[in-house]
Amino acid sequence: MKLRIEQKKLLENLNYVIRGVSSKNLIPILNCIKFELTNEGLYLLSTDNDIAIKTFIPSTEIESIDEKGELVVSGRYMYEIVRKLPSGIINLEEITSDVLDISTDNTSFKLNCNLVSDFPDIDLTLSDNPILLEQKSFKNIINQTAFAASLQENRPVLTGINLKIEDGTLTATATDSYRVAQKKIKIDTNTDNINIVIPVRNINELIKMLNFEEDNVELHIFENKVIFKFNNIIMMSSLINGVFPNVAQWIPNDFSLSIKVSLNELYDAIDRASLLTSEAEKNTIKLEIKDNIGVILSNIPEIGNVKEQIHILNEVNDEFVIAFSSKYMMDAIRTFNSEFVTLSFNSEVQPIIIRNPEDENLTQLIVPIKIY
Amino acid sequence: MKLRIEQKKLLENLNYVIRGVSSKNLIPILNCIKFELTNEGLYLLSTDNDIAIKTFIPSTEIESIDEKGELVVSGRYMYEIVRKLPSGIINLEEITSDVLDISTDNTSFKLNCNLVSDFPDIDLTLSDNPILLEQKSFKNIINQTAFAASLQENRPVLTGINLKIEDGTLTATATDSYRVAQKKIKIDTNTDNINIVIPVRNINELIKMLNFEEDNVELHIFENKVIFKFNNIIMMSSLINGVFPNVAQWIPNDFSLSIKVSLNELYDAIDRASLLTSEAEKNTIKLEIKDNIGVILSNIPEIGNVKEQIHILNEVNDEFVIAFSSKYMMDAIRTFNSEFVTLSFNSEVQPIIIRNPEDENLTQLIVPIKIY
Repeated sequence: MKLRIEQKKLLENLNYVIRGVSSKNLIPILNCIKFELTNEGLYLLSTDNDIAIKTFIPSTEIESIDEKGELVVSGRYMYEIVRKLPSGIINLEEITSDVLDISTDNTSFKLNCNLVSDFPDIDLTLSDNPILLEQKSFKNIINQTAFAASLQENRPVLTGINLKIEDGTLTATATDSYRVAQKKIKIDTNTDNINIVIPVRNINELIKMLNFEEDNVELHIFENKVIFKFNNIIMMSSLINGVFPNVAQWIPNDFSLSIKVSLNELYDAIDRASLLTSEAEKNTIKLEIKDNIGVILSNIPEIGNVKEQIHILNEVNDEFVIAFSSKYMMDAIRTFNSEFVTLSFNSEVQPIIIRNPEDENLTQLIVPIKIY
Repeated sequence: MKLRIEQKKLLENLNYVIRGVSSKNLIPILNCIKFELTNEGLYLLSTDNDIAIKTFIPSTEIESIDEKGELVVSGRYMYEIVRKLPSGIINLEEITSDVLDISTDNTSFKLNCNLVSDFPDIDLTLSDNPILLEQKSFKNIINQTAFAASLQENRPVLTGINLKIEDGTLTATATDSYRVAQKKIKIDTNTDNINIVIPVRNINELIKMLNFEEDNVELHIFENKVIFKFNNIIMMSSLINGVFPNVAQWIPNDFSLSIKVSLNELYDAIDRASLLTSEAEKNTIKLEIKDNIGVILSNIPEIGNVKEQIHILNEVNDEFVIAFSSKYMMDAIRTFNSEFVTLSFNSEVQPIIIRNPEDENLTQLIVPIKIY
């Protein structure tokens, strides 16, 4: 393999594939990037079997392709070296069967290569009928839901985000069983119904790469994997086996009480009140509704207490008290970009539902905390 | 104590005093800030005995002083609360003898106070004859030297920066015994000779506060402490007892070889070469001089090797090889803001001296590493 390429162009692509290289992977070959130079251009590939990322630099964007070939080299070192090289042309050449020379006028790095035959064989063949979504919109859906997934590995299915397509609606759902985040959007598709669970750690890597917001991302869904394609980039993620909980049954349709409040006012009040909560106590704060005013209360006995008033914008005659995690409530409120939010309740032990009063496509559910 | 004050004004001052509040201090009173409200204004004070910071807000910058008094309250909570309050007027009132109420229209925090009598009594009386230095210049001196101090507590004097005034010259020196950073400047003073060692952790806190660069900072030096005064702020630091090493004897006056190189070219070459070094091996790199060219070499046997060429700008006929820590060399080079630097040598086991060829007031010394 021998080629000359702009430092900037190579770095731009390494920036993507480096995300598929785990820094803690104990199997050396999985810390590597595979280079494949053909007449069409240069393919870069990384994988740890759970995730794979492949980019393509067409020959028109390569200074010169002097000798086709393939090789496998440490991803982390390759990335850091190219990142620190000055802008301009870089020479890449396999000088013996297991050494890659990376050079410019004054610099020469010689990196030991791994065996190409040891690199995992990943099938990245695309399907004929992908689902198309605008990158900006897909990114938004994930950002509004993925945070609610569980970080605990003991119920693997809860560490994923559930994507469901049914009757022209895409529903994205994540839950750690104490909260639910769910977003629905209409999509234009003629695919069969779909119901998959994608690991949140993988989808978060994808989200960081979706920077061509007006362009589409293609979803190619298979039995045990999903392949995303956007621009010249392909990302494969494994799927999580298991039945995702049917959260629809947890989300009530009727409420005994709903309050409409200013999003920023509520967020800031909870943010301040959370100063006097402790993680050991699940960051619990209390909301009291009385005389059409909301009062948020919390305290750490040794330190002090806080009382925040928030304006309730609709007419409410009930008196009501409920307690919940201030952290969960802030995470939920942050996903709305509206001026107002509605908090809906049935009782102090039933879920709180947060929505934008003008758009019910996004639902945030929080399980309250019992206080005695 | 009762007053009304702009949130912004109070926060600006808390931003300073919070630096005197240790977050890991196990003695609760040392996590506190003392408020003292007089007819002249509001004094804020924090201390952990090793450091003390006091600011003053004159009455003209306070909305209203309704009742003089003093109190002591948790510094971290006070700071976070004021930081999160909306801009506008804050009411501060001691409502009972041990509770401070911090309130705005919709918010009320009640914080438990500590006993004023438990707060350490710190003498912050100034001297009559301070040394005056321009803040920008003092900051520069510290930034060029303090990094070379030791992080190891086993020789306390090396964890400090040595300030010496003799015959109108201020000399700042730091060393961890493997490297020395020394800066000399002429100053206008009629004080006696001075020779003190200030803990680097304290001086680094000071440096972050010196933002009024054209103004002066006053140094009031006492037997066992130094007080810095700038604007409305006073900072006290303890001094380190012990004899600071006489580094002058380590810095040679004559060299058998000196090379002049471009600062950026040298820095970038070492930065890249350091990718193939390991901390366990003290980040060792090798510099070979031959045929008027410098070659930087390093390697990690399992990964690969690197060779960087640098241009030597003066005529050098010698052949020479030396090895040193790439990290130490980069730390040293970074302190110069010149286009060129000179590296001077006597032998491969004697110190390397780095200077700006046009200005000898800053000296960086690095002890080489023996390689076999």
